[in-house]
Amino acid sequence: MHHASDILFTLFIVFVAAQIGGEIAQRLKLPGVVGEIAAGCVIGPSLLDWITPEQTATGTPLDVLAEIGVVLLLFSVGLETRLEDLKKVGKVAFLVGVLGVLVPFGMGSVWAHGSGFSWDKSLFVAAAFVATSAGITARVLQELNALQRTESKVILGAAVIDDILAMLLLGVVVSMQGGGGFNLSHLLLVLVGAIGFIAVVGLGGARVMRWNSSWLEKPLAPHSPLMIVLALCLGLAYLSTQFGLAAIIGAFLAGMIASETRQQHTLEQQTMPLLALLTPFFFVITGSKIDLHELANADALLMLAVVTVIAIISKLAGGWLGALSLGKRSATIIGFGMVPRGEVGVVIASLGLAAGVFNNRIYAIIVAMSLLTAMVTPPVLAWLLKRSGSDETIDRPRAT
Amino acid sequence: MHHASDILFTLFIVFVAAQIGGEIAQRLKLPGVVGEIAAGCVIGPSLLDWITPEQTATGTPLDVLAEIGVVLLLFSVGLETRLEDLKKVGKVAFLVGVLGVLVPFGMGSVWAHGSGFSWDKSLFVAAAFVATSAGITARVLQELNALQRTESKVILGAAVIDDILAMLLLGVVVSMQGGGGFNLSHLLLVLVGAIGFIAVVGLGGARVMRWNSSWLEKPLAPHSPLMIVLALCLGLAYLSTQFGLAAIIGAFLAGMIASETRQQHTLEQQTMPLLALLTPFFFVITGSKIDLHELANADALLMLAVVTVIAIISKLAGGWLGALSLGKRSATIIGFGMVPRGEVGVVIASLGLAAGVFNNRIYAIIVAMSLLTAMVTPPVLAWLLKRSGSDETIDRPRAT
Repeated sequence: MHHASDILFTLFIVFVAAQIGGEIAQRLKLPGVVGEIAAGCVIGPSLLDWITPEQTATGTPLDVLAEIGVVLLLFSVGLETRLEDLKKVGKVAFLVGVLGVLVPFGMGSVWAHGSGFSWDKSLFVAAAFVATSAGITARVLQELNALQRTESKVILGAAVIDDILAMLLLGVVVSMQGGGGFNLSHLLLVLVGAIGFIAVVGLGGARVMRWNSSWLEKPLAPHSPLMIVLALCLGLAYLSTQFGLAAIIGAFLAGMIASETRQQHTLEQQTMPLLALLTPFFFVITGSKIDLHELANADALLMLAVVTVIAIISKLAGGWLGALSLGKRSATIIGFGMVPRGEVGVVIASLGLAAGVFNNRIYAIIVAMSLLTAMVTPPVLAWLLKRSGSDETIDRPRAT
Repeated sequence: MHHASDILFTLFIVFVAAQIGGEIAQRLKLPGVVGEIAAGCVIGPSLLDWITPEQTATGTPLDVLAEIGVVLLLFSVGLETRLEDLKKVGKVAFLVGVLGVLVPFGMGSVWAHGSGFSWDKSLFVAAAFVATSAGITARVLQELNALQRTESKVILGAAVIDDILAMLLLGVVVSMQGGGGFNLSHLLLVLVGAIGFIAVVGLGGARVMRWNSSWLEKPLAPHSPLMIVLALCLGLAYLSTQFGLAAIIGAFLAGMIASETRQQHTLEQQTMPLLALLTPFFFVITGSKIDLHELANADALLMLAVVTVIAIISKLAGGWLGALSLGKRSATIIGFGMVPRGEVGVVIASLGLAAGVFNNRIYAIIVAMSLLTAMVTPPVLAWLLKRSGSDETIDRPRAT
């Protein structure tokens, strides 16, 4: 009984901290998500030490709640995304995804080599510069009710491309550590598998749902469409990890498929309370992973500043170049939308620490960079989106 | 990343198993909850071994989800319960609670002593006969849309009394093991604390909410009433464990307080998807704890049958006597409503195993008895409620 009591206390603390942080951020005209991440930093080991997340994904209860939270978040973003809309922006999204990976990877490895890493280790460090965290951007776009804008579609499409490329890149740099070469045919197989998974699920699933979704109401259980669709979300999230992709890609696909059903609006409304309960865990846990102690000296802070600036500029440049065909204003929004690294950078840094490529300080700096980009982006994105108005919205009634 | 994949697979399996089990049960005209518990037994260690819950509450991710699930369930039941309605049935509920503890405790200890246990150990065994699992009954009443009936109010009120008494009883029998006496003044203090907590939170909270609930909408966050009320639910669930009570008592109180607000109807609707996602974990995990291997012989099965019959008859008799003033039909419904033991019996059996009072077989039998009572009750209760119609509903519009 005692342990149940401990965990309830932790849940209460995390949930309330998220609400207070979010509220303060919103009163300061910042997106709520910034406040939730900051709240995690405050109650985490660095300051109050009320919660102690594992540094790696070991499946503590809080990590699991965080995982469910971000899975549901991307599911709900998928629910507001039509396959047709994504197809319209497919070419731009592809360019943004590819350049948004190549530019940061290039700049990151040059910087790392310049700082004294050998080339093979530099590539590992650079891999941590690459992967965009779709969760942060998606949440900001959702908070600002901007998911129907063209720029948002490009960002979401590019995030899928980004995840595929980041996975491949990580496979390459990990296999290169210790002087081993990499197996090109294996990588090609992985690439084909991932693309095949996305294509079959996305195209096939959307077609099935558009053709007929009344079977979702066949079960006797109340809320049966929601139950089936949640099962689909968990199942595809799991399956996508089996193809080497992030769980949130599968969840996003599940949502996108479900957006083709005629129950889409009800599903959107029913997903809201789930997000309200569970996503705060994701953002608070993310914030709690910053280790302020390792950063408490001028050298480390300077290095962090340099790394963060490179991370922001390189991603912004890559995305901007890729989206230039939509005009400079939209390209800037899209470029900034790709900047947050969040949990993906943290995971790569953990791998580097475990593989002995990073020491504690560079680990702390990479993690802090990931989270700084996640915290800097939302206000900028919010400002850019508000300034540019809603004139470029794809023609579809907005969900409220 | 790999662990996230494992846990997503487990979540998927548990969730889908619950849906399939619930669907089969409903097609057989049984309450869905029976199918969810049975699904847990099928996918648990006894049969397919797809999930392996801990035998004690050690806070694995699945246990935590189960805990959140049952906390939210009792919260939502509280949302449909007005303090005024509970007050109307206070006297009967008190009698049902007290007799529903004393009769099973008496019959249980006589049986245990007759089976060869010393008196002090017999009292421990008997304690496992006592505590009603409000979760099972609440779910059945909710499924049947019967929460507004007088009998339901009595059952819920009695469940609160039951939990207080069971906690005190457990305190006494635990302190008696090893020949030590018990400290009466300490027990009185615990009793006063628990009653004080319930009275202050229930009466005070309801008064505050009735007086003014517009402050729930002050925060800028969307869904702010839901967020505040969920924080209240987690906070009171935790606090009630600090007073030695089950977490679900605090959650029930939180719901009852929130039912006094003018946002009550919205909150009810928003809680539904949360229940849909999370309560299946509770019932599947509960079912997975049955150890069929220990029961796979005639002796054990016979003993299980005897124990289960005693558990059912004693609780039914106690509840029936307590509620006789409402007429025999209502008294029967209330008596059966108190029969399920569920997770509380499991927890007491775990304590007994850890303290060396139970061997593995008696442990398995107590656990199986707890879950059998939980599976037998819902169909009986559903049948009794349908047969007696809805003529005794308290005058209040029913939630849909």
